[in-house]
Amino acid sequence: MYLIVVYDADVSRVNKVNKFLKTYLYWRQNSVFEGEVTISQFKKIEIGLKEIVNVNVDSIMIYKFPDKKSFELHIIGIEKNPIELIL
Amino acid sequence: MYLIVVYDADVSRVNKVNKFLKTYLYWRQNSVFEGEVTISQFKKIEIGLKEIVNVNVDSIMIYKFPDKKSFELHIIGIEKNPIELIL
Repeated sequence: MYLIVVYDADVSRVNKVNKFLKTYLYWRQNSVFEGEVTISQFKKIEIGLKEIVNVNVDSIMIYKFPDKKSFELHIIGIEKNPIELIL
Repeated sequence: MYLIVVYDADVSRVNKVNKFLKTYLYWRQNSVFEGEVTISQFKKIEIGLKEIVNVNVDSIMIYKFPDKKSFELHIIGIEKNPIELIL
């Protein structure tokens, strides 16, 4: 499956969230990550994030797709971290 | 078509980008918008954003899907602006 993860967390937890998400996904921009994961990794991401964030304050949205072909990406301006360079 | 738009713009342009995107999409979180648009609206969004942002500095990513059924959304923590309340 393919994920796009966007988060809005208190500044005190931003580094932790970033570091955690980088172990599974590619940093794309600001507070946006994406990448292909297995079901097992997806579950680990959900569990890990629940441990890191304050669920009463922070907000993390995980958009889950069958695969990367589920969407077209249009970029305006610069691509902060081109995924082609990483894969 | 259905769009998820995430942006990373200089703070001097954030208000303009927000205000512009709100005319077509729903604010979801931080710098994230989403919504159903027509092809004509999609083109207007692209043209409008190119006029507002500095394409050498800012970065806007538009993820384009056939429709909202193309993805599943999982939320951890709070939902900052529940779309069900708006639609």
